[in-house]
This record gives sequence, structure tokens and C-alpha cells, in this order.
Amino acid sequence: MIRIVEANNFSTRRDVENGTDMQRAAVLDILAQVKQNGDQAVLDYTARFDGITLDRMRVSEAEFAEAEQNISPEVREAIEAAAINIRDYHSRQMRQSWMTTKESGTMLGQLIRPLQRVGLYVPGGTAAYPSSVLMNAIPAQVAGVEEIAMVTPPGKDGKVNPGVLVAAQTLGVTEIYKVGGAQAIAALTYGTETIKPVDKIVGPGNIYVALAKREVFGLVDIDMVAGPSEIVVLADNTANPGYVAADLLSQAEHDAMASSVLVTPSRTLAKAVQQEVEKQLAVLPRREIAEKSIRDHGAICIVDSLEQGIDVVNRLAPEHLEVVVEDAMEYVGKLKNAGAIFLGAYSSEPVGDYFAGPNHVLPTNGTARFSSPLNVDDFLKKTSLISYSRQDLLANGQKIVALARQEGLEAHARAIQMRLDNEQN
Amino acid sequence: MIRIVEANNFSTRRDVENGTDMQRAAVLDILAQVKQNGDQAVLDYTARFDGITLDRMRVSEAEFAEAEQNISPEVREAIEAAAINIRDYHSRQMRQSWMTTKESGTMLGQLIRPLQRVGLYVPGGTAAYPSSVLMNAIPAQVAGVEEIAMVTPPGKDGKVNPGVLVAAQTLGVTEIYKVGGAQAIAALTYGTETIKPVDKIVGPGNIYVALAKREVFGLVDIDMVAGPSEIVVLADNTANPGYVAADLLSQAEHDAMASSVLVTPSRTLAKAVQQEVEKQLAVLPRREIAEKSIRDHGAICIVDSLEQGIDVVNRLAPEHLEVVVEDAMEYVGKLKNAGAIFLGAYSSEPVGDYFAGPNHVLPTNGTARFSSPLNVDDFLKKTSLISYSRQDLLANGQKIVALARQEGLEAHARAIQMRLDNEQN
Repeated sequence: MIRIVEANNFSTRRDVENGTDMQRAAVLDILAQVKQNGDQAVLDYTARFDGITLDRMRVSEAEFAEAEQNISPEVREAIEAAAINIRDYHSRQMRQSWMTTKESGTMLGQLIRPLQRVGLYVPGGTAAYPSSVLMNAIPAQVAGVEEIAMVTPPGKDGKVNPGVLVAAQTLGVTEIYKVGGAQAIAALTYGTETIKPVDKIVGPGNIYVALAKREVFGLVDIDMVAGPSEIVVLADNTANPGYVAADLLSQAEHDAMASSVLVTPSRTLAKAVQQEVEKQLAVLPRREIAEKSIRDHGAICIVDSLEQGIDVVNRLAPEHLEVVVEDAMEYVGKLKNAGAIFLGAYSSEPVGDYFAGPNHVLPTNGTARFSSPLNVDDFLKKTSLISYSRQDLLANGQKIVALARQEGLEAHARAIQMRLDNEQN
Repeated sequence: MIRIVEANNFSTRRDVENGTDMQRAAVLDILAQVKQNGDQAVLDYTARFDGITLDRMRVSEAEFAEAEQNISPEVREAIEAAAINIRDYHSRQMRQSWMTTKESGTMLGQLIRPLQRVGLYVPGGTAAYPSSVLMNAIPAQVAGVEEIAMVTPPGKDGKVNPGVLVAAQTLGVTEIYKVGGAQAIAALTYGTETIKPVDKIVGPGNIYVALAKREVFGLVDIDMVAGPSEIVVLADNTANPGYVAADLLSQAEHDAMASSVLVTPSRTLAKAVQQEVEKQLAVLPRREIAEKSIRDHGAICIVDSLEQGIDVVNRLAPEHLEVVVEDAMEYVGKLKNAGAIFLGAYSSEPVGDYFAGPNHVLPTNGTARFSSPLNVDDFLKKTSLISYSRQDLLANGQKIVALARQEGLEAHARAIQMRLDNEQN
């Protein structure tokens, strides 16, 4: 049963899996082998870990066509509709380069340009999610990234989840390699005969993928390494207990480490949700996972007031926050730390996970204090532009010299002084 | 003498210092001690590493007043003028939260809000740079960060560099602690009796600071861990060899690991710059550092054409790029990878280091392929906002259910289906 707790010092922070020494050593070895031996190493690891010897890593046209056959028209239509919504939302995040021109002749600017080539990791097996393809690839496309290379581990039959292929094809992403694990991260970082290196790698993966990403960071950029997922529902007695329980369970079914929390001043709602969770849990297909998650990391936190509830929420800084209270919009300004805020009874978390438009890659485990949902900026880079005029150099050169000398950097001072001497005479 | 090299495969990539096992162990120990023992541990480490037993960590009003006495009016004026320029430039980076309202009643938005509390590390000793205070604190202030806590190691006399204090006071940053090293990073992360914990830590430091930042990342956010610094000058025969040499040397004097490179199709310019570097180097105060940097990591790279030069530059992805060619602006669109681009003879690198307005914290060692200068976004976080309407849920609910079921996430499907069943009857 989901426990009822008091607000004081209640925390959902969980330890992040860091891998064992053996796992880290294995990853370092895989990275080194792929760096040195390229495709051959990748194919060897694929045979060893995925149980399939591939002739060709890249997904063929025939494989795309076959995937199309294995997806219902209903799902295809839903993927297309979701893609339109996600693209619309992310297009609104796009930014322009800008400049400012001074009367003195100086021009300053900020170039905002896309990364050139991005790698997208998509997990295989039971965690192969078409929605993950949409959520990771669309922001990159909106940013203007020229090349997106997708990697995903093949099944023992050498195939890729058809939903993943259809989602990719819907977006026009056609460079897909049947490679997974640390060997895929290595191939994207160092490049092989078949796979060109990328500038950034995004997408979720298992502990080997996470360790490999952490290791190559600096050579390439990576997205955040996601921690366990969580939802907090802040609700008053206007909330429907069945909806609240269902939303808590939709988080809990992801993973035994997931955390589902109701924060409420209403003991009546607390009791009702507690019962609903039991009832709905009993008939869930992924009951075992959800039950463990609810038992270990679930809670109903009773607060004295909504104000205290807001404090608890800000402290937890949840990935997903549902606000199901009267006049929910009024509280948004006070809710400072959350990856995504869902307002009202119809903004159920799955609406955001799949369909509404905002990204489902969100900061986990309290990092919403300082991190953001995956967004178009993550695929853009900035470059400062400085065109300083002779007039400004003559007017301000002595100040620059003074600052450089104060810091003991005489060569800096002389680079300016030489120009002053030259231009003033 | 600065060597002349051919373009093929020329690289300036240097290995990033990762610390020894002993250094890493020392940092882990310091983090654990400060986490457990708070102020007492911080004071003990300060006595041990900085050679001073402090009664009080926080810089007092009297110390600010004393610092004012030790700074010339000329430097003070230069700091104030630089601060105005830096604030003006960064203010242009500021963004607004936005929303979009659909006819169906759905509202989607993106909240863009400041981090609440930020820690700024400022090195002590000979590397105590007022400009570093301006460049790190101003973007945080522009973002709207409420609290900025600065930490900097005290000298053996218990004092802080007066330029650093005056720069901080110019900005209204008054919460300054005389703490440095890994113990400062620990205090900012975990909090102590005196120092409240922060959401993000920025600013450069030595290897212990870098290792500590890497270790606490996830509990707090950190800025990039800066690698060795570099400049590339792309020049044709219109460039002044004296200016080019001076700018190369202003980079070289920073650090023996710094890299200074001229890329040019003109052998005449190459020869002239080579001679100028020798001449100017001979009379530099920091000659020893600059000489080692030029010898180990400096180069003049001869290219067949400016086009080939642009390819070399894009491959190097330099932190600083000076473009001193006819019609320099024409090439900006092709120069894809650089932290900052300086155009023309008067845009000497120190202009940007100190004064023009753009940030001097830039992506180093080839990371400009995917990273950006420090900017206001680094102190903002985003939160998605979803207020989904009943009408939209009824219209799109079945699609969301289809997507959830395709992924095998039945609790997700049921959270939506339950609402459909309820609302449609």
C-alpha cells in the first residue's frame, strides 16, 4: 500500500546508478576496441551482446518497408499526429542570431547555429519506444541539424522494433544503424568505416550506454544522463481520486526505481487515492514493477496547506508535476522547480509523454532545480561576433591596457598598446 | 621559434588534465569531510592549504573598503566601463517565457526562469582576475539569479585580491567567502553553517577545483570544465604581422598549454609573423610561459587558399578566432566552429577578454563544435507548461491510448481511457 507521510524532510531523492568497476572496465575496453578496429569491433560486439552476426549495419529500404507492414494504421496515424504537435511546439523555441551596431562603427553579435551532425541512441527490446524517436529527433530537426544518425540494438533476429522504424521514417530520419550498447556510443564518437562521427549524442540507454556517454563527454557533447523518473501530483479535494491514482501508476509502471507522490492538504483525498491505487494496481499488466515502485518510492504527503505543499514540491523539484487544484494557474508562479507542469484534470501525464507537443525528456531526480526539458537549444551552439572599430579602439584602448596590466598580463596590454601607438602617430 | 606546418591533419587538440589517483582521492576525502563537518572542516582545510587560520570566512565591509584603497582610479573606471559593456551585451540574450493558446482550449507554454542561487568560484593568487568576476557574475545577474555567493581562496595574509573585491562590489555582489579549493566546492554543494548550498557552480579553478566540480555535478549544475586555451588567426597578406604576432603572444602568455596558431595562404605573412613573434617574445615579462606555449603548441599553418584555411579552422574549432582578411564579414557564414570570432585589425583578442561585452568564458580545445560561450541561458531553466482541455482529450485520447499500448505501457493507456470512459458517458 502506498504510505502516507508527513511533509517534514520528506524526500524522493534516489541514488543514481554509477555502475560497478567491472562495468566501467568493460566500457573502457569497448571504447578502445572500437576506436582502434572500427566496424570489425562493432560487428564482433554485436554478435557477442545481441546474439546476431550482421552482414550490414545500416537499416535497408526493405527493412523500412517491412516495418510499415507491421504497424497498424491507427498507430501510424497517432505517430504522425504526435509528430505534428511536437514539431509545432518545438518550432516556437527556435531563436535567431542577432547583432547590434554602434555609432562608433563597432558591431557585436551572437551567432546561433545548429550542430552539424547528431547521434540518437534508441534502446532496443521491450524499451524500444517510438515516442523516444520523436522527442529526441524533432528538436534536432527544428534546430536545423543537417545529419541525424540513429543507432539501436538489433533483436536476435537482426531486426529493429517496427514502431521505431516507422517513427524515424515519418520524420525523414533514414540513417539508422543496428548497433547498440557502448559499442554504438564508441562508433558515434570516434567514427568507423561505416558510421561517421557526430558532434553530440542524445537518447536514453542502459547502464553501459550511460557509462560510455559519460566517458566520451568532451570529445562529443551528450544530453543529461537520466536518473530514475518521477511524478508529483499536487491536489486538493476537487481532484478525482481515480484519475490521480491512474496517473501515479502510469509513472510507477516505468521502473521499480520510479517515484510517484501525491501532495495534498486533503486527508479525504489521501485515503481515496490510497484505495484507488490498490484497486488499479491489482489489475495492471506491469503490476510487479509498479508495486515495487509504489512500495519503495511512492508516498502520499499530507500538508497543512497548499502553500506548504508548494514548498514540498519546490524542494522535490519533480520531473513531472500535476497540479489538480482550484484555480491551478494561480500557483504556477510559485512552483519554481519542475521539468513539466500539467494543469487540471485533463492534463494527464501520458498526454505529455506522447502527444501534446512539449518534450518528454525531462530533468529527473531533483535536477529540475537547474536543468531543463530537452529542447531546440540543445542542438544549437552560439558564437560571439566582435567587429571592433578603430574609433572604439582609440577611445577605449587605455582602459583595456589598464585592466590587462592590473591582471599582470603584459602581452595582452601590448597587443592593444601597439595598435594605439601605431594608429595615433 | 614558432614552427611552420602544412594544413594536412594539423591539429591543436591537447590532452585534458584528468588528475592523478591521489588527487582524486584527496578531493573525495575533502568533499566527504565538509559534507559531514561543515564550517569546521572548511576552516581546517583553509589553515592547511592556504596557510591562514580565519576567524570569519565572509569578507567584511572593512575589507571591501580596504580593497577600494588599493585600486587606482584608472583601473576602477576601466572595471566600471567594462561592466556596462558586458551587461549591455548580455541583456540582449535575455528571453521571455511564452505560451500558445489553441481554439480547443488547450494552452501550452515554456516558462523560462532564473536559477535561485549560484556559486561563483574565483581563483586566488597570481590568477586572481577581476575580469573573471565580471564575466561570470553579470550573466547570472541579467538572468535574474537572486543570490550569488562568491568563493575565493585567501592569501597567507588572509586577504583577497583587491581587484576581485572591487569588481564584485561594482556589481553589487557582496556575499563573498574566503574559501578556495575542493573545500569551497563542497561548501557550495552541501552547505555549511555559514554557506548556504547553491543550484549551480561556475568559474575556473585548479585541478582540485575541476575534479571537485566534476564529482558534485548532478547534485548541483556546473559550467564546463575549461581545457587549455587557444587562438587561431586566419589572415591574408593585408594583415599587420606585428599585430598578429602580438595577439598570438597574448594567448601564449596565459599558460604553457595554450595554443596560438596562424592560418594563412601567404608565405610572406608567415615569415614576417614568425620574425615578429621572436622579436616580441624576447622582451615579454612572462616570456618563459609564452615561449614554452609557442614551442609546444604554436604553429603557422600554410594553406593553399582561404577556402582551405576555413576548413582547417572548422576542424580546429578554436576558442578564439581572429579573421584578418579583406572582406572578413563575407566568411563568417562559412566559419562554423568557434567560441568567438574577432573581425578585422582592431578586434584584438584582449578587446574581447576585457571590454567589448561578449563573454570571455569560451569553449576550449575543439569543443566549439558543440558548446557555447558562457551566456544568460546558463543561468536560466525551462519548465514546460501543459493545460490540456477536455475537448482535446476527447478528440485525441484514442490516439494517446494507441501509442501507449504500442509501447506496452498499459497504465499510461488506462490513465487516458478512464477519463474517456468517464467524460463520454
